Amino acid sequence: MIHAARDVRLENHPDPSIHKPTDAIVKVVAACVCGSDLWFYRGDNPIEKPFLIGHEFVGIVQEVGSDVRSLRTGDFVIAPFMYSDNTCPHCQVGIQSACSAGGFWGGPDRDGLMVDGGQGEYVRVPLADGTLVSTRETPDEAMVPSLLALSDVMGTGWHAAMAAGVHEGDTVVVVGDGAVGLSGVLAASRMGAERVVAMSRHEARQQIARSFGATDVIAERGEAGEAAVLELTGGVGADAVLECVGTGQSMSTALAIARPGATVGYVGVPHGVELPVRTMFSRNVGVAGGVAPVRQYLPALRDDVLSGAIEPGLVFDLELPLERVAEGYAAMDDRSAIKTMLRP
Amino acid sequence: MIHAARDVRLENHPDPSIHKPTDAIVKVVAACVCGSDLWFYRGDNPIEKPFLIGHEFVGIVQEVGSDVRSLRTGDFVIAPFMYSDNTCPHCQVGIQSACSAGGFWGGPDRDGLMVDGGQGEYVRVPLADGTLVSTRETPDEAMVPSLLALSDVMGTGWHAAMAAGVHEGDTVVVVGDGAVGLSGVLAASRMGAERVVAMSRHEARQQIARSFGATDVIAERGEAGEAAVLELTGGVGADAVLECVGTGQSMSTALAIARPGATVGYVGVPHGVELPVRTMFSRNVGVAGGVAPVRQYLPALRDDVLSGAIEPGLVFDLELPLERVAEGYAAMDDRSAIKTMLRP
Repeated sequence: MIHAARDVRLENHPDPSIHKPTDAIVKVVAACVCGSDLWFYRGDNPIEKPFLIGHEFVGIVQEVGSDVRSLRTGDFVIAPFMYSDNTCPHCQVGIQSACSAGGFWGGPDRDGLMVDGGQGEYVRVPLADGTLVSTRETPDEAMVPSLLALSDVMGTGWHAAMAAGVHEGDTVVVVGDGAVGLSGVLAASRMGAERVVAMSRHEARQQIARSFGATDVIAERGEAGEAAVLELTGGVGADAVLECVGTGQSMSTALAIARPGATVGYVGVPHGVELPVRTMFSRNVGVAGGVAPVRQYLPALRDDVLSGAIEPGLVFDLELPLERVAEGYAAMDDRSAIKTMLRP
Repeated sequence: MIHAARDVRLENHPDPSIHKPTDAIVKVVAACVCGSDLWFYRGDNPIEKPFLIGHEFVGIVQEVGSDVRSLRTGDFVIAPFMYSDNTCPHCQVGIQSACSAGGFWGGPDRDGLMVDGGQGEYVRVPLADGTLVSTRETPDEAMVPSLLALSDVMGTGWHAAMAAGVHEGDTVVVVGDGAVGLSGVLAASRMGAERVVAMSRHEARQQIARSFGATDVIAERGEAGEAAVLELTGGVGADAVLECVGTGQSMSTALAIARPGATVGYVGVPHGVELPVRTMFSRNVGVAGGVAPVRQYLPALRDDVLSGAIEPGLVFDLELPLERVAEGYAAMDDRSAIKTMLRP
């Protein structure tokens, strides 16, 4: 539970139970800490009262409500970072993050009923059929980190690449070397980009980027970084740009390095971003993206993980038992860890 | 020639001649007045010294430079509203409006040589091979308005629809009922949109919209217009939105009526537009578009006109001899005409 800025505690809570016939109860196998959890941790988002935090987890179905059709007790499941019914008009076109019945973990649902966070032992999952994606057979332990990465960062990096319209043979630049940016590198590479440029100045992150398929690394930022991309592309700019940070500077760089006709796929929640519409217009550079509809991409990404085609779990560089959750937050806060996995 | 705000005059000028081996001289068959010409006419854009105005024309090739390969004297040609070499990296991906050697009619080229405007009897066309698209055979007189419409408004409306990602079966809303907006209706319809909603409160323009394939017309603007679109789409919003005005209000409406996951294709030059990036992010609504690469679309649209599949020339509701050019501007300025055609 998070009580206040920099105050995350392991506490005992009553185990959840089925409240609605569409619910399922999941025993968490692994959860993780998200960059957006840090907004609460750092005091950027207000905390009105303590709540169960976390929105990324995988686990085993313990119990299902009477209306749940697609899941059975014992199924290994991946939860996307939002729940959704997967049947409303927005879900039907693959934008489950806009589901008319959906919502976020750790807050009230549309009836005011609290939904558990994912950093715990058990989670009540609303709209279980629409939300959870199962692997049926329990995967090897070694697969768990990669399946867990699908709950948010890999699906979000994938969304950036989809929104940017990455095509086979493209030159793609990824702005941001956090877990999402690294996942964006993996996504662009998996989509067949010929050249994937990671903008990163951290040695450890550069290495992961390369193992995810980055063909080039640019350590410079700002104008120097933009100049480096232009030099790399013969002055033309990138065919697609993934903006995975959300600051004014990162968006400014992303727009500047996109070639005319290209799209910046952005998944970094905008903080202090202003879109220069007249420059975008004169250069024919578009922006697309937003809160990633991870649920749309889960089945295909699950198959890619199970087949060994991708290994997004490499973004986890710190694994802790749940009782040391506070350490996990601190390590991500001071950037000594890229992403923390928690094991109940 | 335009001398100052509200001061357009027919004057005698020496006929142009070939200056570079890539030039061609075109005898203008028909030209027209653009909404963007009105920025000069209304004093919104400064006029440092009088210049030959106009960037939309069709005509007959009179003479070609020694390097021109694709054109012959006597060819009927359509000029897009910018000239381009059609070979640079931007042209090669179809963004000829970003051509590294290209530019606008009526201004200096990259060597400082003045390029003629299109509202006259003869035009020196730079980079003729890359710029002009010919019909080979001289088309029927009745085809001329529709071929002329391809030089800007139809290609621009098409770009809005392409940028918005219109697909067969979509519900598309077009914001703006000027010549470009009406052309956007025609583009969406030609691309197979199932429902095309024109936002227009002018009877004459509504009629053209319907003849261009609009299935619905919404006369309301602002919040009432947005509510009407939402009602029409069962609360979901449009699959694609074409923003063909360029004001803050029109963009705001366009973004509000786009369903999550949709793209606003915008071709109205932004005046006072601010993009609300956080709302766009939370709704997954993208924007794409800009200065239309008409040259990309010209060959296919030419064929569509010649086959009778589209008749974009219906946007012309005033035809005048060139000597009455001042009347043509005045009629568009007071909106008594949608678009004026001029005949030298």
